Amino acid sequence: MPEKLVIIGSGPAAWTAAIYAARANLQPLVFAGRPKQVPTTILPGGQLMLTTEIENYPGFPHGITGPKLMAYMEQQAVRFGTRIQTDDGQHPDVSNPDDGHSYKYHDCARVDLSTRPFKVYGEDGQVVETHALIVATGATANWLNLPNEQRLARSGGGVSACAVCDGALPIFHGKELGVVGGGDSAIEEATYLTKFASKVHIIHRRGELRASKIMQKRALNNPKINVLWHKVVTDVLGEQMITGVKLRDTRTGEETVKELGGLFIAIGHTPTTAFLEGQLELTEKGYIKLKDAYRTTTSVEGVFAAGDVADSVYRQAITAAGMGCKAAIDAERWLAEHGID
Amino acid sequence: MPEKLVIIGSGPAAWTAAIYAARANLQPLVFAGRPKQVPTTILPGGQLMLTTEIENYPGFPHGITGPKLMAYMEQQAVRFGTRIQTDDGQHPDVSNPDDGHSYKYHDCARVDLSTRPFKVYGEDGQVVETHALIVATGATANWLNLPNEQRLARSGGGVSACAVCDGALPIFHGKELGVVGGGDSAIEEATYLTKFASKVHIIHRRGELRASKIMQKRALNNPKINVLWHKVVTDVLGEQMITGVKLRDTRTGEETVKELGGLFIAIGHTPTTAFLEGQLELTEKGYIKLKDAYRTTTSVEGVFAAGDVADSVYRQAITAAGMGCKAAIDAERWLAEHGID
Repeated sequence: MPEKLVIIGSGPAAWTAAIYAARANLQPLVFAGRPKQVPTTILPGGQLMLTTEIENYPGFPHGITGPKLMAYMEQQAVRFGTRIQTDDGQHPDVSNPDDGHSYKYHDCARVDLSTRPFKVYGEDGQVVETHALIVATGATANWLNLPNEQRLARSGGGVSACAVCDGALPIFHGKELGVVGGGDSAIEEATYLTKFASKVHIIHRRGELRASKIMQKRALNNPKINVLWHKVVTDVLGEQMITGVKLRDTRTGEETVKELGGLFIAIGHTPTTAFLEGQLELTEKGYIKLKDAYRTTTSVEGVFAAGDVADSVYRQAITAAGMGCKAAIDAERWLAEHGID
Repeated sequence: MPEKLVIIGSGPAAWTAAIYAARANLQPLVFAGRPKQVPTTILPGGQLMLTTEIENYPGFPHGITGPKLMAYMEQQAVRFGTRIQTDDGQHPDVSNPDDGHSYKYHDCARVDLSTRPFKVYGEDGQVVETHALIVATGATANWLNLPNEQRLARSGGGVSACAVCDGALPIFHGKELGVVGGGDSAIEEATYLTKFASKVHIIHRRGELRASKIMQKRALNNPKINVLWHKVVTDVLGEQMITGVKLRDTRTGEETVKELGGLFIAIGHTPTTAFLEGQLELTEKGYIKLKDAYRTTTSVEGVFAAGDVADSVYRQAITAAGMGCKAAIDAERWLAEHGID
């Protein structure tokens, strides 16, 4: 018997889709990815697992940690009948959000959308057939991949890949901040950060920005924004908190140190779509293309997309969750229309 | 000094917009509506104030009451610097979510979008000027407006206007349910409820459905769906829980009683747009028209719409919250583009 609905992912979009689909009695099966195994297609829990405190998810006035919010959502999905694909075929019963469970979650290796029902291949070759599919595999921020950058990003030490998420944190208030990048989103992040920072230094490897002319003009006219041209970050300094960065001049090779109270990496995102192997239409930037921008339909009927894998604009936990809900409602109606129940 | 951003509304879309706008240092001013005064433009807290337990808002695995979720969101918005418009100009400091505060919230009577900055008129004639505006005034489900229908709807007694929200509740499991209406959404709700009910009776005042032919065919072929033609509900029976409805035949006037374990009213929604007096483009159904379906822009630059007032499709707390976040990000970028900071 094919599944009615498989959901791939385990961030806010995936779990919200699972909550709604489970409540609609679709008993969704979730490929949640494999923790602590690199490379893996999906990071279980999504990008929020890399955050510490989340202050802007509505409903938690005192904030909540990323892993806890994800555990709550997962528990809620399971409570209503969501099944999570695991190595031994057992579905975890996550009745206590703080209970560490020892199930080995299963990652999705690839899909075949050319046949109906669709085929979803687990990483060890298992095949699950499904009538409908929700792809909510997210995107990962691109990092410089410097050891100290990663260490400070994961420990809340003042290194981030999202100004909207983290810019308002008190640790950045009145500080000199750095933004790495030269595209539109680097300029947007720098402009946003001027609300909190005493000064924002855009660190760019070239002598001109890739951002649109109007955005450049606005940024360069902003007295709080300074551009460090022809510079790359070679190390991030600081023990508990960032204190500065080591820079290398791309023309002269000269090494300098710039003192900073925070660093934002804005060099783009990579949506997790490689496992689709071109079977869904993507945008120029590699995100899943929505057939109808208000809905979650994709280029293949019966396949729906939600969250950062289909959103290059907003990328927030709450917007991803909203899309997950939409995807479940869209999938439920599509299944009903096709008499699959 | 004009405000940077005024937000009209007080449901999940409005408070989420306020959380994000406040964190972006825009110090948003919220017209939250006036409680317990009828008629009022906005019901403070939105439609969720009429619900009891919400089980599908992601992050609360054991559910949360509607009023509590709204109090949490409001508290979160205020924590980051949101100001709420009140009669005496004082802004409430809602530091304890369960604290009843005695501030008189202020409703918005009308707006003038023909001048810049825009003008927002309070119900007592006060005028607030603002560069940007987010409209998140929601929509209200249409009810039969029978006293016992309202009493049981507000007390969780098995009467609801949203099958997706409430259909999965245990009280409806295996019961015979009624759905009032004859349009597409009545058929969608009836079809959805067959997942839980032993039988679903569509109660329709006419001898044919207004729903599209394909939806009608599917519904009428569903062995769990029965249509009670030419019938109107004249009363809802039951003390703590609905036990049935009193029906009148629209042709003969004959009165009968139909035993039911739940009743869903599906006779449409009315978006709260009257106070706009035609200054924003609306859809055929009266919802605010989005200029770009993926964003929250409207027919007037600098005015953004979020939540049920611009959503005739999904109408969930989580989708409204997602749109509220988008609206705040869109407004923040628009203000930055126009050098208002």
